[in-house]
Amino acid sequence: MTDLSKKEMTMPEKYDVKFMKCALEEATKAFKKGEVPIGCVIVKDGEIVARGHNTIEKDKSSLSHAEVKAIKKAQKVTGDWRLNGCTLYSTVEPCVMCVSACILSRVDRVVYGCREVNLGGCGSIAEIHRLKGFSHKTKVEGGILEEECSQLMKSFFKSVRKK
Amino acid sequence: MTDLSKKEMTMPEKYDVKFMKCALEEATKAFKKGEVPIGCVIVKDGEIVARGHNTIEKDKSSLSHAEVKAIKKAQKVTGDWRLNGCTLYSTVEPCVMCVSACILSRVDRVVYGCREVNLGGCGSIAEIHRLKGFSHKTKVEGGILEEECSQLMKSFFKSVRKK
Repeated sequence: MTDLSKKEMTMPEKYDVKFMKCALEEATKAFKKGEVPIGCVIVKDGEIVARGHNTIEKDKSSLSHAEVKAIKKAQKVTGDWRLNGCTLYSTVEPCVMCVSACILSRVDRVVYGCREVNLGGCGSIAEIHRLKGFSHKTKVEGGILEEECSQLMKSFFKSVRKK
Repeated sequence: MTDLSKKEMTMPEKYDVKFMKCALEEATKAFKKGEVPIGCVIVKDGEIVARGHNTIEKDKSSLSHAEVKAIKKAQKVTGDWRLNGCTLYSTVEPCVMCVSACILSRVDRVVYGCREVNLGGCGSIAEIHRLKGFSHKTKVEGGILEEECSQLMKSFFKSVRKK
């Protein structure tokens, strides 16, 4: 039996979709807790080393973004603040703070799902990863499972408006 | 007896110097622990509600910046992630991540000591507080006790080079 999906995609794309699905699982956890559904996983050598989802309401902290939480966990797990060799997957374009946190933590690559037009720091309100000055360069790619990631956000805000 | 220092300064300046001295105390704590000497206090209604200093080495986390730590404490103390009415004093120009954290946390005013030419997000490598998109506007001022703040950093890096 031929698995067409595997043939049609290049290897990086295949892995990007696989790990973005894991980030979507994290986003769904946030949704169920009444938090804005943004989820994140950090991958090193093909394995997930950390997961995180938005817990701003629970923590009463505007800094409890999915990406920041996952970065902290990854640093704890690896015992190193340098996350070279890691890719961070986020369902939504990281905000200005979060993409800065990725660069400061030396994340190699950031992959996101849908745009964040109000706060996004990877093209929407700024291109933080293109700033001169940082000694580390983090690559950024967007649009992986964009529709699913966007749909989850829309469903959440629709449910909030109903309440 | 006339207190000239009080007469020569306007009220906000007087308070800025007072609280920057407290931030310098925090920076000195970091210095003594072998951490880059950056300190921070957050002030509301004329009272310090949170203090923080850089603990990157201790925490093995690139996110343990003085400002982020103080913001989290202030949010815990006040029980609210919205820090409207607060001024954040940092001995060094907040980096791109930290000034973003201030804006996301609705800090009214950021006051810093000396410039951070490599990472500073308040004019050095970017002007994050001037980005369109943020719903909250944070005012930024620099140069308060600039020489003292800068000297502490220089002394630290000199001692590191000696080792």
